[in-house]
Amino acid sequence: MRKLKVAMLGFGNAGSAFGRMLADKHEEIKERYDCDVIVTAIVTGRRGSIVNPGGIDLEKVCTAGASGAFPEDTEGLGALTAMEVVETADYDVVCEMTPLNIFTGQPAIDHIKAAFARGKHVITANKGPIAWAFDELEQMAKDNGCMFFYETVVMDGTPVFNLTEHTLKMCRVTEVSGILNSTTNYILEEMAKGRDYDSIMESGRQLGFVEADPAMDIEGYDAAAKVTALLNVLMKAGITPDMVDRTGIENITAEDIKDAASRGKVIKLLCCGKLDEDGKVTAFVKPVEVEMNDMLASIDSTTSVVSITTDLMGKISVIEHAPEIEQTAYGVFGDLLRVIEGLQQ
Amino acid sequence: MRKLKVAMLGFGNAGSAFGRMLADKHEEIKERYDCDVIVTAIVTGRRGSIVNPGGIDLEKVCTAGASGAFPEDTEGLGALTAMEVVETADYDVVCEMTPLNIFTGQPAIDHIKAAFARGKHVITANKGPIAWAFDELEQMAKDNGCMFFYETVVMDGTPVFNLTEHTLKMCRVTEVSGILNSTTNYILEEMAKGRDYDSIMESGRQLGFVEADPAMDIEGYDAAAKVTALLNVLMKAGITPDMVDRTGIENITAEDIKDAASRGKVIKLLCCGKLDEDGKVTAFVKPVEVEMNDMLASIDSTTSVVSITTDLMGKISVIEHAPEIEQTAYGVFGDLLRVIEGLQQ
Repeated sequence: MRKLKVAMLGFGNAGSAFGRMLADKHEEIKERYDCDVIVTAIVTGRRGSIVNPGGIDLEKVCTAGASGAFPEDTEGLGALTAMEVVETADYDVVCEMTPLNIFTGQPAIDHIKAAFARGKHVITANKGPIAWAFDELEQMAKDNGCMFFYETVVMDGTPVFNLTEHTLKMCRVTEVSGILNSTTNYILEEMAKGRDYDSIMESGRQLGFVEADPAMDIEGYDAAAKVTALLNVLMKAGITPDMVDRTGIENITAEDIKDAASRGKVIKLLCCGKLDEDGKVTAFVKPVEVEMNDMLASIDSTTSVVSITTDLMGKISVIEHAPEIEQTAYGVFGDLLRVIEGLQQ
Repeated sequence: MRKLKVAMLGFGNAGSAFGRMLADKHEEIKERYDCDVIVTAIVTGRRGSIVNPGGIDLEKVCTAGASGAFPEDTEGLGALTAMEVVETADYDVVCEMTPLNIFTGQPAIDHIKAAFARGKHVITANKGPIAWAFDELEQMAKDNGCMFFYETVVMDGTPVFNLTEHTLKMCRVTEVSGILNSTTNYILEEMAKGRDYDSIMESGRQLGFVEADPAMDIEGYDAAAKVTALLNVLMKAGITPDMVDRTGIENITAEDIKDAASRGKVIKLLCCGKLDEDGKVTAFVKPVEVEMNDMLASIDSTTSVVSITTDLMGKISVIEHAPEIEQTAYGVFGDLLRVIEGLQQ
């Protein structure tokens, strides 16, 4: 039986949910794929690192949750940085789930490059690398004979990249659009109910929909990074997020929303990228009015959608309904299964 | 370069659109897959058959359209039946697109069995075989070392079966639902606009949304066959369409629709199948009231949707927006690419 060694960079909500899924499915993976998956390294921002070439006891470290300290008797506890683990630990595939600087894609990009330099496979849940450095990373993966998967970057484990690659063969993507930012979607929805901005932000923080610093979401940076990632992969756009024509929802007023509603419309923060006649891809993120009976109007709260138009298959849409953290974990998990299958070929 | 010989059973709108797509993409397939795809046999209901082991001139026969007679000088013109072609012609893969008896799945089932018996691969666009005989056919494919693909059976080439198999690995499907019949969707929508039934049926016939005998659609037989196909493949349900609890829209009145609208609701013909606690799959087709702002309410006219709920990935939906005949053709085309890839492994 093949052994597959996994290094995890980041062990927050999504990371620990992935750890739990791996532990739960360990025997089933063994049975189906004849592969024994073990986690040999975990790095966190504030809780130190664990390195154990024999395999970390996932049940044990997952009971600590996403923020609690690891049990003191955990074998291999230390204080390595993510880069130290990437460069020195014994693993076959690294799962990059560290916190992101959305303006640079770092430090995730450097972690990924360091892993490829060692000939290791990479799974990333981080949109930054795909938005800021996709072409370079993809080339580096090829040059080093490594697999590189990133389904989780847009809509968790909902198939978007895999969908296009594995189920729309030979289709040329001509347009991609969607509603991809839950925070702004939630805020616009609550504003439409007549709630005031401050109370929305407060309850949003409590529900986990709104970050401590919400500017990345509200000003459209998160959505711009996601649409860039989509366009770089699906349309080989070779763009960066700063090339997206970006307008956030910061200037949308309760009046705007009421006015739209009086005309049977709803305001949504839409992401869109199109191939123009010269073969150039242009993209925008902006609040748009959609008809009340349009599918886009039905995308509420944390639900999101990507629509893909191709030459051969027309327009199809994929919706992820009200995901939980397990759906993020599944994105990484599904990519890991893809690595296992790739190694078997 | 490998040569792949295709036999086509049925050459109506979808068949000839598939023929055109094959002709258009012939060189691109050669380049990408190092495979020269030729069509060695075409059978029609009323226009006779063409058998040409050297490869039929697709451009030429496609100019005849979906119903016009083939040019008299077409090499290999004859009057073979579909079964005669399946049993005697020289081909590697058969595309089953003959007209369907929805109560039996025939004659498609017999064509497919005869192809497997000769060790040939099968692509079907026909829901009948998947609804009435999936387990048996799948077993026969396995026993004979044949590939068996059927993406087109539900929502044309929109990935549903491939989506679940190739992008939701290790997920267990627990529920499937959707709006899968365009005719009833169109009729309900037009009734909601206040139009009378007879004028809807007349314009529906002109638009090609309503069949000469609309009972198969209106009474829910078509929807029941589609949900059965979904459940047989995605949940290994092992059921037949007569086991679906089926109610059509024949008793829905203009009053019902008005009454629903007054409560902010829309009537849609919903298909649904669920895994119950005993591991048994139960299914229904029936008109249900959905909220005006529900995604299902936005599925208008020929647009359709399938929602899939799994243990690991929650609920996702796939929408096919206003398909044309090319999207049906792509379903068969995509399956053909899958056959080519399968032969390369």
